[in-house]
Amino acid sequence: MELYLKLTLSILAGTAVFAPIAQAEEPIQPIRPVQQINLAQVELGKKLYFDPRLSKSGFISCNSCHNLSMGGTDNLKTSIGHNWQEGPINAPTVLNSSLNVAQFWDGRAADLKAQAGGPIANPGEMAASHTLAIDVLESIPAYRIEFKQVFDTDKVTIDEVTQAIAEFEKTLITPNSRFDQWLLGNKDALTAMELEGYQLFKSSGCIACHNGEAVGGNSFQKMGVVEPYQSPREAQGLAGVTGKDADRFKFKVPTLRNVEMTYPYFHDGEAQTLTQAVDIMGRLQLGKKFSDEENARIVAFLKTLTGDQPSFMMPILPPSTDKTPPPKPFG
Amino acid sequence: MELYLKLTLSILAGTAVFAPIAQAEEPIQPIRPVQQINLAQVELGKKLYFDPRLSKSGFISCNSCHNLSMGGTDNLKTSIGHNWQEGPINAPTVLNSSLNVAQFWDGRAADLKAQAGGPIANPGEMAASHTLAIDVLESIPAYRIEFKQVFDTDKVTIDEVTQAIAEFEKTLITPNSRFDQWLLGNKDALTAMELEGYQLFKSSGCIACHNGEAVGGNSFQKMGVVEPYQSPREAQGLAGVTGKDADRFKFKVPTLRNVEMTYPYFHDGEAQTLTQAVDIMGRLQLGKKFSDEENARIVAFLKTLTGDQPSFMMPILPPSTDKTPPPKPFG
Repeated sequence: MELYLKLTLSILAGTAVFAPIAQAEEPIQPIRPVQQINLAQVELGKKLYFDPRLSKSGFISCNSCHNLSMGGTDNLKTSIGHNWQEGPINAPTVLNSSLNVAQFWDGRAADLKAQAGGPIANPGEMAASHTLAIDVLESIPAYRIEFKQVFDTDKVTIDEVTQAIAEFEKTLITPNSRFDQWLLGNKDALTAMELEGYQLFKSSGCIACHNGEAVGGNSFQKMGVVEPYQSPREAQGLAGVTGKDADRFKFKVPTLRNVEMTYPYFHDGEAQTLTQAVDIMGRLQLGKKFSDEENARIVAFLKTLTGDQPSFMMPILPPSTDKTPPPKPFG
Repeated sequence: MELYLKLTLSILAGTAVFAPIAQAEEPIQPIRPVQQINLAQVELGKKLYFDPRLSKSGFISCNSCHNLSMGGTDNLKTSIGHNWQEGPINAPTVLNSSLNVAQFWDGRAADLKAQAGGPIANPGEMAASHTLAIDVLESIPAYRIEFKQVFDTDKVTIDEVTQAIAEFEKTLITPNSRFDQWLLGNKDALTAMELEGYQLFKSSGCIACHNGEAVGGNSFQKMGVVEPYQSPREAQGLAGVTGKDADRFKFKVPTLRNVEMTYPYFHDGEAQTLTQAVDIMGRLQLGKKFSDEENARIVAFLKTLTGDQPSFMMPILPPSTDKTPPPKPFG
């Protein structure tokens, strides 16, 4: 590895723009674009992701709360569920979620496939059941044929449904942010202020939790290390999964990729702006009061983490048939 | 015109597949693909169409109820509005809506531009106000710049917002249905059963109202001509606009383009299937009881009216800023 880098450096010697060795030791790595993927599953999963018929009302799809036009989230403090129920927690972004150590704020799903079945059957979210969702899909010949083509199965089950949705979600990677361009050697990709923000992000300790390819998403940490965090919500975090008192208020560290688009912030969505989020994180997690200038520098750095957003054709869904169970939006 | 057709026929003489003169006198015309359009307005309008920040909750966009993945409608009897309010009437499809003589079931908006402002400010739908929508858009630099580029204005008003949305909606035309291919001379585009359904559609009188390029959308007619229509909804139709008692229960005749996708049917959405809709229309409007075979033939014809669905990249919306009024989904 060292040899390779020296070699690269010698090849690039004399160029001012590219200097890969300078970033070789950074605690944040550039996002790798999507590599191996099952494209047939992706195309099916994209339809399912956008299909509100997986909800009881026929109105709510995965994309309702993880909106791919808006950073893979709904930009609400907490989400709106069936019958306009107020959700208990902020909808995390689906962008780059395949890089997470586990899914949900409390990590109760091991991976995207395990996650995908949750909201469909949650009475406060899509309020359907897996049986109902399958009945809907099996009543639609175009879906039956596509499941047969993709999974070689005559009987659709929730297993194929969540597998296809998860495979689609794996494509929702956002490479090529300005910060990644800088990591990859383009020194001009960041302004001096943004670079100062990054240095401050590292020297202040933010990097201790927000690191790696996703700049977070790879550990659980207590919300409120130095000072306790006051939340209007009741979420207990990891303790709800492990049953251990020591895990109370431990939440999965959110990715900071595309953080400019994924407002509002924290598991309860109570920080509306990046400025607020940086200020609160500094005080509660690090015992630091950032000056306005420091805060602005860190925010400037964070905005360089916005990558190429998912780019795809809006899917067209196959129509229901006379046999499709009708949606029940009211009552 | 006659000369042109004769000339065309002579050029095509001897070909079995194309015989344009045979369809020259049909009461339904093929849909013309989109011609003149302001592409800059379309691109801006597409973003606005998908932007839920034009609603009070930050959750409902034009696309929520006129979903372009699902035939330009929500496939619900009546729509879900702010705070899960039950709407009073079925959401008509936005597809080919530029061909309508007027907008809304009661025709109270003269054109798409006049229509577009309605749902934004309707307390039962998006529940915002035009002032709030403008405040949101003006707080987002990328929008301000795009309005400046497209309309050469420094001050965004609802006039430009609705103009851009309407221009986008004009692109939502669905040409190239199998029926249009048949109209344009491809005799093989329809099966014998579908063609029999079309002949029955004409000979039974359906064509009296469902004609022209959109197979409807060009007149107001009384719902319940031979027998009165019983509806659980209170909508009075055109009378609510004109104040004339003679206009009670007169509704805009819906387009039958893509009717396979725009279920459920009628202004109250009470007919779940095409079979039901054809049966009820026959009895109430024409005094005819179609046999099961006749009904099936007409339904088979109607399914040939599904055209090429709008095909475009999912838009990416510019993020809100610290100055953007936050959404108010609850209370």
